[in-house]
Amino acid sequence: MSKNPIIILVKPQLGENIGTAARAMHNGALNQMRLVSPKAGWPNPKAIKPAAGGTSVLNQATVHSSVEDAIKDLNFVFATTARRRDMTQSVFTPRKAAELCHEYIAKGNQVGVLFGPERTGLNNDDLSRVDALINVPLNPDYTSLNLAQAVLLIAYEWFQAKEKTPEESLDTSGQDFASKKEVMEFFDHLEGELDRGGFLRVEHMRPNMIRNIRNIFQRRPLTSQEVRTLRGIISNLVDPYHPRS
Amino acid sequence: MSKNPIIILVKPQLGENIGTAARAMHNGALNQMRLVSPKAGWPNPKAIKPAAGGTSVLNQATVHSSVEDAIKDLNFVFATTARRRDMTQSVFTPRKAAELCHEYIAKGNQVGVLFGPERTGLNNDDLSRVDALINVPLNPDYTSLNLAQAVLLIAYEWFQAKEKTPEESLDTSGQDFASKKEVMEFFDHLEGELDRGGFLRVEHMRPNMIRNIRNIFQRRPLTSQEVRTLRGIISNLVDPYHPRS
Repeated sequence: MSKNPIIILVKPQLGENIGTAARAMHNGALNQMRLVSPKAGWPNPKAIKPAAGGTSVLNQATVHSSVEDAIKDLNFVFATTARRRDMTQSVFTPRKAAELCHEYIAKGNQVGVLFGPERTGLNNDDLSRVDALINVPLNPDYTSLNLAQAVLLIAYEWFQAKEKTPEESLDTSGQDFASKKEVMEFFDHLEGELDRGGFLRVEHMRPNMIRNIRNIFQRRPLTSQEVRTLRGIISNLVDPYHPRS
Repeated sequence: MSKNPIIILVKPQLGENIGTAARAMHNGALNQMRLVSPKAGWPNPKAIKPAAGGTSVLNQATVHSSVEDAIKDLNFVFATTARRRDMTQSVFTPRKAAELCHEYIAKGNQVGVLFGPERTGLNNDDLSRVDALINVPLNPDYTSLNLAQAVLLIAYEWFQAKEKTPEESLDTSGQDFASKKEVMEFFDHLEGELDRGGFLRVEHMRPNMIRNIRNIFQRRPLTSQEVRTLRGIISNLVDPYHPRS
C-alpha cells in the first residue's frame, strides 16, 4: 500500500527527464515511480545526476511493459493532458486532483497519476484506461510544460494539500512579540519627544496624527528587541553621541 | 505600469537558466523580467533555446546594475528564500503571495518578486530591501528547487489566482448532457430487459437493486450519445447480430 499517489511515466524518452522528474517528486514527498517501457532502458545512469536529492525515488522505481501492467493494482488513476481530446472525461485542476488523492488514499485506495512521453503526451487509448484527467490551467498562449515541471506541479499540489503551512507567518527567529506594555511605552516615549519638539503642536490635529503614527508601527507585530531598537533610535536622534555638525 | 508582478533575477549564473525561467514566466502569463548583473552578460544566446515559447519575455528583459536599481520604481517587493535567516520578516506561501500580488496591483501598485543566484540564493542585504519573503512549502527533507522551477511555482500560483478555472469539469467535446427523459428511458430499457432475464426476480431485493444500478450510471452526467451507446449495448447483448456460439 502506498500512502502517496504513484507517479507513472509512460515511455519517457530521456534518462535525464526521469531524473528531473524524480527530483520534483522528492520535493513534494512522493516516492513511488513506475516507468512504462522507458525508451533508453532501465536503469539509466543519465538519470542519476539530474535526480539530485531524489535518487532514492530512482532506486525504488519499477519498470512495466504496458500501461495496463503499471496500473493493474491501482484503484483510481488520473492522466495528465495538455490538449483536449474528442472524448468525454472528467477534468480536474491539479489542486482539486490533489484533494481527491488525499481523500481516496485515506479511504484505503491506491492512486496513480500517468504522464505521457515528452513530445506526444498520452495517446487516446491510454486515456481511456483512466478515471479522470488533470489539466493544468496555464497561459492559453503557452501551456507547454516539460515532464519534470508537470510532475513538480502535481507533487507541489499534493504537498500543499497535505501540509498545513500557515499562508502568512512572521519569522522572528524565535523571539517573542513585544507586550502591549512595551509598545505603549515606546509610543509614550516617541510622542513625548514629538511634543517636546513641536511636531504635534497643532492641537486639533494632534489626536489624528498620533493615531496615524501608531498605525505605522502596529501594521505587523514588533518583537521586544525591535521595540528596544526603536527606542534607542529616538534617544539617539534626540541626543546624539556625537553632536551633529 | 505592469499589470503583472515583475520577476527579478539577481546575478543569475547561466544563460540557460534565464531561458528556462522566461519559459516558466510565459506559462503563467508573466512577461516582465529584470536581470541584475547577469554573470555571463546580456543578451546571452544560450538563453534563447531553453526559453522555448517564452522568447518574448527575453526580448523585453531589462538589465540592472544593482538590486536597488531593479526595484526603485516598485511599491512592494517579495523575495523568495529556501532558508530561514536571522531576521524578522513576514513569510508568505506562494499561494497567499499571489493573492496579495493581485490585490496590490489592482490598487495601482507595482509589485516585484526577487530570485537569488542559483547556488547561494539572496543574501541578507538583499532580503533587507524587500517587504516580505516567499517560502515554498516542500518536503522538509528536500526543499531545493532550481531557478526555473521556483519561478514556475510563482507564475503558476499567479495564474491560478487570476484564472477562474472550475476545479472540476466534464469535457464532453461540446456535446450536451442527456435529458433526464433520455436517462429514464435508458433505465426503463435496461430494467425491462433485466426483468425479462430474471436478474431482478427476487421481489424484496428488486427496489434496492434498481437504485444501486441507477447510481452506477448517474455518478457523473452522461451525454445523449453515451445514453444511445448504452441502449445499443443492451440491445446487442439481448439480440446479437451474430448468434453467439
